[in-house]
Amino acid sequence: MTTEGQIDFFFKPESIALIGASPNPEKLSCTILENLLKMGFKGKIYPVNPGYQEIRGLKCYPAPGDIKDKIDIAIFAVPASTVLEILKGPVENIKGAIIVSSGFREIGPEGKEMEVRLKDILEKKKIRAMGPNCLGIYDTASKVDTFFISSDKVERPSSGGVSVLTQSGSFAAMIMDEMANEGAGVARVVSYGNKVDVDESDCLEFLARDEVTKAVALYIESVVNGRRFIAAASGCVQKKPVVALKVGKRDPGAKAASSHTGAVSGRYEAYEAAFRKAGIIEVESYEELKDACKVLNRYPLAKGKRVLIITDGGGIGISIADACEEAGLRVPDLSIEAISKLRKKLPVFASVRNPVDLTGNVKDEHYIDALQEAFGEEYDLAIVSLLWGPPLLSKGVAEKIKVFASHCEKPVLICSPGGRFSREMSSAFTSIGIPVFLLLTGG
Amino acid sequence: MTTEGQIDFFFKPESIALIGASPNPEKLSCTILENLLKMGFKGKIYPVNPGYQEIRGLKCYPAPGDIKDKIDIAIFAVPASTVLEILKGPVENIKGAIIVSSGFREIGPEGKEMEVRLKDILEKKKIRAMGPNCLGIYDTASKVDTFFISSDKVERPSSGGVSVLTQSGSFAAMIMDEMANEGAGVARVVSYGNKVDVDESDCLEFLARDEVTKAVALYIESVVNGRRFIAAASGCVQKKPVVALKVGKRDPGAKAASSHTGAVSGRYEAYEAAFRKAGIIEVESYEELKDACKVLNRYPLAKGKRVLIITDGGGIGISIADACEEAGLRVPDLSIEAISKLRKKLPVFASVRNPVDLTGNVKDEHYIDALQEAFGEEYDLAIVSLLWGPPLLSKGVAEKIKVFASHCEKPVLICSPGGRFSREMSSAFTSIGIPVFLLLTGG
Repeated sequence: MTTEGQIDFFFKPESIALIGASPNPEKLSCTILENLLKMGFKGKIYPVNPGYQEIRGLKCYPAPGDIKDKIDIAIFAVPASTVLEILKGPVENIKGAIIVSSGFREIGPEGKEMEVRLKDILEKKKIRAMGPNCLGIYDTASKVDTFFISSDKVERPSSGGVSVLTQSGSFAAMIMDEMANEGAGVARVVSYGNKVDVDESDCLEFLARDEVTKAVALYIESVVNGRRFIAAASGCVQKKPVVALKVGKRDPGAKAASSHTGAVSGRYEAYEAAFRKAGIIEVESYEELKDACKVLNRYPLAKGKRVLIITDGGGIGISIADACEEAGLRVPDLSIEAISKLRKKLPVFASVRNPVDLTGNVKDEHYIDALQEAFGEEYDLAIVSLLWGPPLLSKGVAEKIKVFASHCEKPVLICSPGGRFSREMSSAFTSIGIPVFLLLTGG
Repeated sequence: MTTEGQIDFFFKPESIALIGASPNPEKLSCTILENLLKMGFKGKIYPVNPGYQEIRGLKCYPAPGDIKDKIDIAIFAVPASTVLEILKGPVENIKGAIIVSSGFREIGPEGKEMEVRLKDILEKKKIRAMGPNCLGIYDTASKVDTFFISSDKVERPSSGGVSVLTQSGSFAAMIMDEMANEGAGVARVVSYGNKVDVDESDCLEFLARDEVTKAVALYIESVVNGRRFIAAASGCVQKKPVVALKVGKRDPGAKAASSHTGAVSGRYEAYEAAFRKAGIIEVESYEELKDACKVLNRYPLAKGKRVLIITDGGGIGISIADACEEAGLRVPDLSIEAISKLRKKLPVFASVRNPVDLTGNVKDEHYIDALQEAFGEEYDLAIVSLLWGPPLLSKGVAEKIKVFASHCEKPVLICSPGGRFSREMSSAFTSIGIPVFLLLTGG
């Protein structure tokens, strides 16, 4: 690549051009402009389309060369062939491109040929590019949203500490939607699709030095330059946790991955080894990756594997203990000191061991008693599970646990399974930024 | 047991007495009466409490012996010691008891002693009993609901084909709540707690010959009589699928199980072997058990392991394919015939292999095209995954898929991950009885 170098300007842009801008709500570009405006991007926005004088109150330019300003990001929302045509014209003022258009490598030989030409021209013109076949950037720090999906359909998460890197656009949209729905924030989300230029390694190098990013989540179909990936990832891991999901592990998935973003998935074992070498935490499923994002958005990594479980439902406690052991965590007994203190404070039928079972006689303060007396040096992580049936348990328990968690350096996770009532009750946690899990297993 | 024999009357009762009945909403018995009435139980209901003449318009009796009728089910909602006292009195008209009271084996030596005396007296008086320390029965066929948790807190599922057997009451409440929330019905749910008498084997014998039960889900902490369990389970498996979750598999969980319902969990390997011998399908987590219930409520068991995946999001398709392979299922290629037919019908960028990726250009009918052309003899099961971002995809797809599924003998499962908008869209499936999964993995 002649265009190697830092890609920081993608995350701190002062000007964005939207090529193929349109007021027609059926066009993707219309949604992109809508989202950019909604996000409150503070820099200049330049719609580009020879067919319009003005779109949504913004002056519209016939071509990027007509804009008398540098363009940090030019979003290409035009057909594949038009992307090439425009790039052949005067584009000296474009620093970076986000090519959302599909119709390249992912559709077969013809598209692949088109992508080779795209790569050539980008190198020649020294334009760094994300895509093609991607959604681009959703960035709560720079207030950029290039996604062509309406926020009515895919909710946007609030500002948070986790950045997400992904080849798959549908994955980006899905995890953003679910994180928003579960009250977890993100820093920057990058969907780079076919990776004609910018890839996970470029992004990892940037995120390593990015102050707003506290942790990184990676969705990987394929990595082309393994050595560079390991170097970039190792550098990032030294600064912050990096969690990765490799998809297309086995034959059918691998074949699908190749038609999806034109990627060759390669042997899974090589990825496993690379993750280990770089110090990346590998997860096994989409749900585990999302769960990791929810936790890392709020907490640092747990320092060890010793879990304290507090519950008001015996069966739930047992299932969580099983799941912890299954996941290689440990569920050690309470200290004798904690046991004797808790016997005095907890309901009479409570089970004072690990899991602590507060039973259906639980009151809000019993959860705090259990945390205060039992969550000592013996444990690295607490899982607090609530069934909302007990009559004396109230939504107020969330605020109490929040106060405890804010003085505690170790992760306190909430597990609140159940239907409508439980979700309504557990929303008290999500609304104050404490991650809630509906499931007993995973994560 | 001198009281062995059929327990059918628990599921076809003509009369129910509620011992400890009270109009005081803080009493569990008040909630039980509320739920019984709400459920629309058609038989006689006899409140029993020497302190009242009448409760909610029903004549109240001082003691069970004062009721001049046989009592199929006497629900005991009084303290542990009172249970024993009452049973020592005239109770000849009681056939079966559901003892919801806690304070027995699960609280330690003193409670265990009490439970031994309870067992003695039940045998002497030839009363079959569920519990103690249980929720009892929720039965959509006999319209019985003995659960002491309000339906405001734990939703009740509609009438369906799966019966659930469990030691843990919190588990019963949780799975009912979640199944109701996800539109899946149940036949009968039995929470038998400490199992002083009626246990999983009694219930399996009944459920084997029960016509409303199409499949059985078992939550097991411990089994006391392994040989009888294998016989009862084998008999049931010959008639309908039986799925089981064993909890307390490992040390910490096992210890918690013992304090929870006073059960000794025993070596997990013995359970694994028993499940295999009886032909029980073992699942690994609560979520898998719930997922199995959702599927078996709607579909028969799949006949094989070959899965067709249809999606409109490439990344999702790959993740599902990975998860299928991980779970020991197969994701075989489409037939050449199906490929050539689909190329003519699907969007131009669609990926015509397995997973079929309909892409963001998908219209409702493309899902049906893919099902009609591809879901042939080569597959045993279809997973249809929908991301709701594509502009031409509508809620109407649910009705179309329902029509297809109703003419198809094989399971068609829906996977619809995402946040608020996705849940709203996918409710079109749950409302017509097609199971929807929010997750890509599990189940």
